[in-house]
Amino acid sequence: MFNIIELDNGLENVQGFFCGATNVGMRPDATQGDVAFIRSDTPCDISAVFTSNTFQAAPLKHFQKYPQGFQTDFILINAKNANAMTGEKGIEDIETIMSHLSTKQQVLNPIMSSTGVIGYRLPTDKICSAFDKLAFNAKNSDATACAIMTTDSFKKELAYKVDLANGSSFNIAAICKGAGMINPAMATMLCFITTDADVPKSDMHELLTASTEQSFNRISVDGDTSTNDTVMLLSNKSSGNYQKDAFSQALNKIMFELAMMILRDGEGANKLVTFEVKGAKTLEDAKKASMALSNSLLVKTALFGEDPNWGRIASTIGASGITCDDSTLTIHYDDLLIYSNEFRELDKAREDKAYAIMKQDAFKVSCDIGLGDETYVSYGCDLSYEYVKINAEYRT
Amino acid sequence: MFNIIELDNGLENVQGFFCGATNVGMRPDATQGDVAFIRSDTPCDISAVFTSNTFQAAPLKHFQKYPQGFQTDFILINAKNANAMTGEKGIEDIETIMSHLSTKQQVLNPIMSSTGVIGYRLPTDKICSAFDKLAFNAKNSDATACAIMTTDSFKKELAYKVDLANGSSFNIAAICKGAGMINPAMATMLCFITTDADVPKSDMHELLTASTEQSFNRISVDGDTSTNDTVMLLSNKSSGNYQKDAFSQALNKIMFELAMMILRDGEGANKLVTFEVKGAKTLEDAKKASMALSNSLLVKTALFGEDPNWGRIASTIGASGITCDDSTLTIHYDDLLIYSNEFRELDKAREDKAYAIMKQDAFKVSCDIGLGDETYVSYGCDLSYEYVKINAEYRT
Repeated sequence: MFNIIELDNGLENVQGFFCGATNVGMRPDATQGDVAFIRSDTPCDISAVFTSNTFQAAPLKHFQKYPQGFQTDFILINAKNANAMTGEKGIEDIETIMSHLSTKQQVLNPIMSSTGVIGYRLPTDKICSAFDKLAFNAKNSDATACAIMTTDSFKKELAYKVDLANGSSFNIAAICKGAGMINPAMATMLCFITTDADVPKSDMHELLTASTEQSFNRISVDGDTSTNDTVMLLSNKSSGNYQKDAFSQALNKIMFELAMMILRDGEGANKLVTFEVKGAKTLEDAKKASMALSNSLLVKTALFGEDPNWGRIASTIGASGITCDDSTLTIHYDDLLIYSNEFRELDKAREDKAYAIMKQDAFKVSCDIGLGDETYVSYGCDLSYEYVKINAEYRT
Repeated sequence: MFNIIELDNGLENVQGFFCGATNVGMRPDATQGDVAFIRSDTPCDISAVFTSNTFQAAPLKHFQKYPQGFQTDFILINAKNANAMTGEKGIEDIETIMSHLSTKQQVLNPIMSSTGVIGYRLPTDKICSAFDKLAFNAKNSDATACAIMTTDSFKKELAYKVDLANGSSFNIAAICKGAGMINPAMATMLCFITTDADVPKSDMHELLTASTEQSFNRISVDGDTSTNDTVMLLSNKSSGNYQKDAFSQALNKIMFELAMMILRDGEGANKLVTFEVKGAKTLEDAKKASMALSNSLLVKTALFGEDPNWGRIASTIGASGITCDDSTLTIHYDDLLIYSNEFRELDKAREDKAYAIMKQDAFKVSCDIGLGDETYVSYGCDLSYEYVKINAEYRT
């Protein structure tokens, strides 16, 4: 038995970790940081999951130059510039910055992480100027979470204390960012998870990968997959305590809750919709149909219009290429049966109930294919004028 | 040698074909038809290509109940109701309508085609009331093309006369509709092509399939594939003239031009963008990347914002899962080099030129993967507030 208790704020709850941010002029609003750090006073094991985009950004390539199983005690993060599609120069810029950092602060295998516009060299001088301003012994999770935001409308941080049956405990905390370019198979999102649990290196990657599949890989804002997506788990073991099942559940929970925060903050999104596809012949079919629903423009605009048009749901399933049959299909909105072989035409009473369900901030669309036992759940949001506005104007 | 000459108007140019439309009250504006017909005074060979959506609408299933190689002389078309996801009842409704039709007009294996909202039974009485109002000897292509429109903002019809080297000639004409739910692998679109060319039955399907792949299968408005997509070619051979190469080119041309009309009329679209992907290792790679570009929300909103943000183009290619490398990739907007291994950062001069290109109604994004010889071209459009508005409000 164990208990997972939510704590106030974020990264400051984990023993031995420090974090903070400063503004070096990349972001016009000087009250919000644009360069941030997370560090541990002892070396950490690290596990990371990166974007499936072939064009991985320079910081991802820089990370992968370290030998397998390396330890680190420092992550530097910048906003406003993704350092992506910058070629060899992009990696050299990181090396320049890190060598400058090492003259100001003792660091072990420092890691860089970037988010922002693609295709421009990092302003290395500006970023290096942060090293005179950052308080390396700060524990300012709020400022750190704010500094890594791009189009996010709120900061995303969470921390849990996990009490184990033997009276011992450990902490896990995370910050993340992301609001657009969000797609299953990772997204324009950065997520940094710190823990003082004594998690063995051998468990870290297994648990991080499994939790990513259950969380960030199941959300979609716009079906686009970025060059910079990163989820990192750092453990400095300083609590000395660990229990695999408890840690796994705490990790699952923190990543799932952060994924839902990203979706709620989806660019221009007003609704969080769960797309459950069950009764599919294969898991691949269930996943394909569920993802097709969370990515369909016609479904997303119908959600925005609060239009109980199940025809778009059905059409999207039919177009997804899975094995399906309109006589075995049933569709529910929350608990309301909205389509089945017997009830094809939407009568006024059910339409009115459907309207009420769709007016909610969150609801579930559940489709039973009726041909098997496999289920997959993904999470999406509506598409509003605001999404178009944000993305038409993002860079300019 | 042969000449393809564009004619005024549409279907009335083809010998032996008649067409017209009437309003039976399905569409509120009584000046526009909602039921239309196309017929030939002699039996026609017919070839058809239907949607890849598993949930084919009732008229598509009704068509497929006729024996292979059947001939027809009558197509009945209605707007406002797709007769999709209506089950066996949907097919029975068509049979009821057709049996009523046969009491008013002699017909051979009549075909039905529908477009509109999914999930409602056809109003058979209303549709049958058309048979007292339609003038079956009319040649009113304009009214027919108008009657089949849904969210289209203009009617789509074209006709060519093809002069052959031996002094003989034949005609080919077509009408189509479509503005949303448009995706490669067909779209919510109906297209009816009539010809008096003496095209052998054995050539018809080969040529129609090839032309579909070069036209409607290469356009995308929103990445959604409908339940009703239909392209039909009817030939009554009445000119007695034919030459395969000439017919093939005329068919290609008429279908390509209509596909571009659909794209120009894409819901809320302001720009027609050609996405050429060349230098790919495999044709499948070229197609995958080209389609990914014409479907990406981030690319489409950047086009709407006239933002020369090549980062979104590159990121989409990288996310498409094809073999690619940022050091061999080059991107052009029309003739302007916008990205290459040497020119990664967009300088002011090139950015200004890029702005000017993007302000045009139509331009080309050309991506050379630099790893092979395969090329694929698809056609897309921008995504505007208007698309969201149209699709949030479509049914209500």
